Amino acid sequence: MENEQKKIAAYIYDLEPAEGNAQQEIPLTLLVKRILETATYHAENWGVGYSTLIKENRAWVLARLAIEMSSYPGIYDKYKIETWIESYNKHFSARNFCFSSPDGKLYGYARSIWSVIDIQNRTSVDITTFRHIENNVGEKDCPIAPQSKIKPVNDENPIIYPIRYSDIDINRHINSVKYIEHILDMFSMDMYDKNFIRRFEINYISEARYGDKLSFYREQLAENIYTSEIRNSSGETICRGRIEFSKRN
Amino acid sequence: MENEQKKIAAYIYDLEPAEGNAQQEIPLTLLVKRILETATYHAENWGVGYSTLIKENRAWVLARLAIEMSSYPGIYDKYKIETWIESYNKHFSARNFCFSSPDGKLYGYARSIWSVIDIQNRTSVDITTFRHIENNVGEKDCPIAPQSKIKPVNDENPIIYPIRYSDIDINRHINSVKYIEHILDMFSMDMYDKNFIRRFEINYISEARYGDKLSFYREQLAENIYTSEIRNSSGETICRGRIEFSKRN
Repeated sequence: MENEQKKIAAYIYDLEPAEGNAQQEIPLTLLVKRILETATYHAENWGVGYSTLIKENRAWVLARLAIEMSSYPGIYDKYKIETWIESYNKHFSARNFCFSSPDGKLYGYARSIWSVIDIQNRTSVDITTFRHIENNVGEKDCPIAPQSKIKPVNDENPIIYPIRYSDIDINRHINSVKYIEHILDMFSMDMYDKNFIRRFEINYISEARYGDKLSFYREQLAENIYTSEIRNSSGETICRGRIEFSKRN
Repeated sequence: MENEQKKIAAYIYDLEPAEGNAQQEIPLTLLVKRILETATYHAENWGVGYSTLIKENRAWVLARLAIEMSSYPGIYDKYKIETWIESYNKHFSARNFCFSSPDGKLYGYARSIWSVIDIQNRTSVDITTFRHIENNVGEKDCPIAPQSKIKPVNDENPIIYPIRYSDIDINRHINSVKYIEHILDMFSMDMYDKNFIRRFEINYISEARYGDKLSFYREQLAENIYTSEIRNSSGETICRGRIEFSKRN
């Protein structure tokens, strides 16, 4: 990995056989893990990563994510993730990603929106006060639509799911990637055999905790477009997702 | 990573914040992913990895795994995984693992038993015919008890679980690590807050497929020892696990 400080950082991975999904490709959940990981690496490089922020009881929180892929790396394919900050204001930082093969084949892009919170009082921290942030904005095209605000989902028959040990992250909330796993698991293997996920979006709205039960809702908006929503047992919305499938050739 | 061909291969990882569990440590499931990954890397190095075997419709199959840990790497800890072949015969290869920090603190060990099968006719392939295998046996201590054969588990009230898309691996079976996740999810957060997993064992017995429902059984054998069993909807045993907890200080 190229770890030196750069406005646009690049990291290279291999897709190992044990990591592949049934379609012999990188699972979207693993791609999102890599998104979180490379965002963390890059932030660490200029002193605003987890290890620095946690000393002041602060943490980055992912608010929105949109991923658009024309294809996915397969088993043993190498893939490059480039990441850079597109812009920032007091409340949010916009970080983009480009996925390609090291020899230049483009897989897709992602856009993410982050805030920084004070863990104890749950208030937002002013990102513009971060040292060096103005020197760390990268300039690179990210030709996919911005994140949208996903509308409430109508579904009379949600799936009820008791939160499990493996859902929980170091902050005692549900792991951001686990929500995506639960959303993707609302679709059948046949759906994934016939289609790939062309665009995926998630809005993280509030936090679910161990001990609660979640309800998973799903709604079809068009032939190939679905939205989904996860609520806690009090009916509060935890997150909403939107999936656009595209037929495999 | 040190990738050159060696009888004892060593790989170094970092535990990223997004990878940690609620106890701020490496999840056992991620440790097993690393076990599978380093086994694959090492086998690739001498031409018996996935990429070579799959051309002849063959694959390594994990039969048994035992892990014993005195402690676990925490967030941002670096951890070294050493792996070597201890022995082999026609039907099985025994591969061991040692987990430590790069500066020499020992975390624990693992023992694994693998076979090679012909994917099409599901028959066992003679491992002794692999070129170079006799030159790739490593000599290093692995001071933990061998894998045991776990007995059938008695439980009147199994949890019923419909297999989901994210459970499935590239061979269209349930991912080996997902079984472990399901077994660990049979215990509460409180159990993991008060205890760590000192020893974990799993026997993989037969394969479960998408579309089936699984039953999860659990039995307490001693104050800190549990066994678990996963069966398919025909009542066939898919795998059995054994967990020995140890109180945290």
